[in-house]
Amino acid sequence: MKLDDIKKLHQKKYRNQFGHFLVEGEHLVLELQKAAQLSPALLHSQLLVTDKYQHWQSPFETRVISDKQMAQIADTQTPPGIVAVAPVPDIPGALVDGERAIYLHEIQDPGNLGTILRTLAWFGGFRCLLSPGSVDPYNPKVVRSSMGAIFHVPLELDVSLAHLAERFARIACLDMDGVAVRNDAFAGHRCYVFGNEARGVPREQLQNFDLHMFNIPGSGAIESLNLATAVNICVYELMR
Amino acid sequence: MKLDDIKKLHQKKYRNQFGHFLVEGEHLVLELQKAAQLSPALLHSQLLVTDKYQHWQSPFETRVISDKQMAQIADTQTPPGIVAVAPVPDIPGALVDGERAIYLHEIQDPGNLGTILRTLAWFGGFRCLLSPGSVDPYNPKVVRSSMGAIFHVPLELDVSLAHLAERFARIACLDMDGVAVRNDAFAGHRCYVFGNEARGVPREQLQNFDLHMFNIPGSGAIESLNLATAVNICVYELMR
Repeated sequence: MKLDDIKKLHQKKYRNQFGHFLVEGEHLVLELQKAAQLSPALLHSQLLVTDKYQHWQSPFETRVISDKQMAQIADTQTPPGIVAVAPVPDIPGALVDGERAIYLHEIQDPGNLGTILRTLAWFGGFRCLLSPGSVDPYNPKVVRSSMGAIFHVPLELDVSLAHLAERFARIACLDMDGVAVRNDAFAGHRCYVFGNEARGVPREQLQNFDLHMFNIPGSGAIESLNLATAVNICVYELMR
Repeated sequence: MKLDDIKKLHQKKYRNQFGHFLVEGEHLVLELQKAAQLSPALLHSQLLVTDKYQHWQSPFETRVISDKQMAQIADTQTPPGIVAVAPVPDIPGALVDGERAIYLHEIQDPGNLGTILRTLAWFGGFRCLLSPGSVDPYNPKVVRSSMGAIFHVPLELDVSLAHLAERFARIACLDMDGVAVRNDAFAGHRCYVFGNEARGVPREQLQNFDLHMFNIPGSGAIESLNLATAVNICVYELMR
């Protein structure tokens, strides 16, 4: 890709158009290189480095650029000196045996999504479906907070509730009145739906589903858990 | 407190000196008011509002200030029009029966600490001990991301490992080589130690403890869970 196009990858519109996203800094580039050993499509990543990193070992096509060029590409205030341009992975096919889907409806916070991806990668066996209007997972902030997990978790973007209903008749979601998640029934689902940070699960839009409600029992002192915490506890419970 | 002193509460030094911290915005002030019904010490909070909020119902001493004054006090770019100055709670005494301590060593990220406090408040029965060098829990970013949980969780600041060793002979912490946290032995502790986001548990400094290692089993695809996620899963497991 041309440098002028790479600079545009800060914008979702161009990430979609070019099908690539930015991976900044030593740690994330190392994670990308590790992930490329398992997912050969990632070998088509391109590496941009400043002088300081000219001897960096990488299987990717590598180009040395100036500090000034790096500053224009990097998202962070202190440009890292090493940035990869990675291809957005192909959308995975149907769920395989034993695989489960975590559907996030209009998730907004990049840190929450990054943390959730990290948990899904940690446990394995999950894919992440995002509704229209969710934060873009290839946003540099999500990539950074995922700490490389984004290279490991199958992702589907812009999955509408109508589309979800075609694929999953039954879904599980969290609700104050639900059964405790430690209940055996919780694990008997293939799709788990979580709502937006502020508005929660869009219950009125879930009438086409056979909906099963579960609950993480608490003391009642506060109204809600953080969204990522709720997802992470559910995923842990499923893999326990 | 005088307005000039209140403005200084953005700095940890003055929060310590004055023993008060800032609580910004409708939602957090409501949570503070709710918490004050259970913890009368919080009734000594003071409320500052702009014209827009002059009819706000509150048990706190209330003062109407100008928009300009509010902008000088508020931490957020869009000043909320309503800010409380709350007293830092007294340090709680010894652990009561059934209470457990979560010790965070040099935690840095305000969002991580806020999320952890939210989880501890959700489940109840925990207090949070912070080592020297940890992020200040009364930092406006932590208060905000705790969503009011900070008013419910007993906190101890600047607890050194030497001090911890005087109080707890046995501690539990996470380690790759540990026993799975679902094991019954995990619940048999009163103090759980978690390390810094980047460096993990300071193992070389834990030689004075009878140390028990536990593990959240994963797939091996990535190196670590987010710190808040690890704490949250452990707390969930303890309360399951």
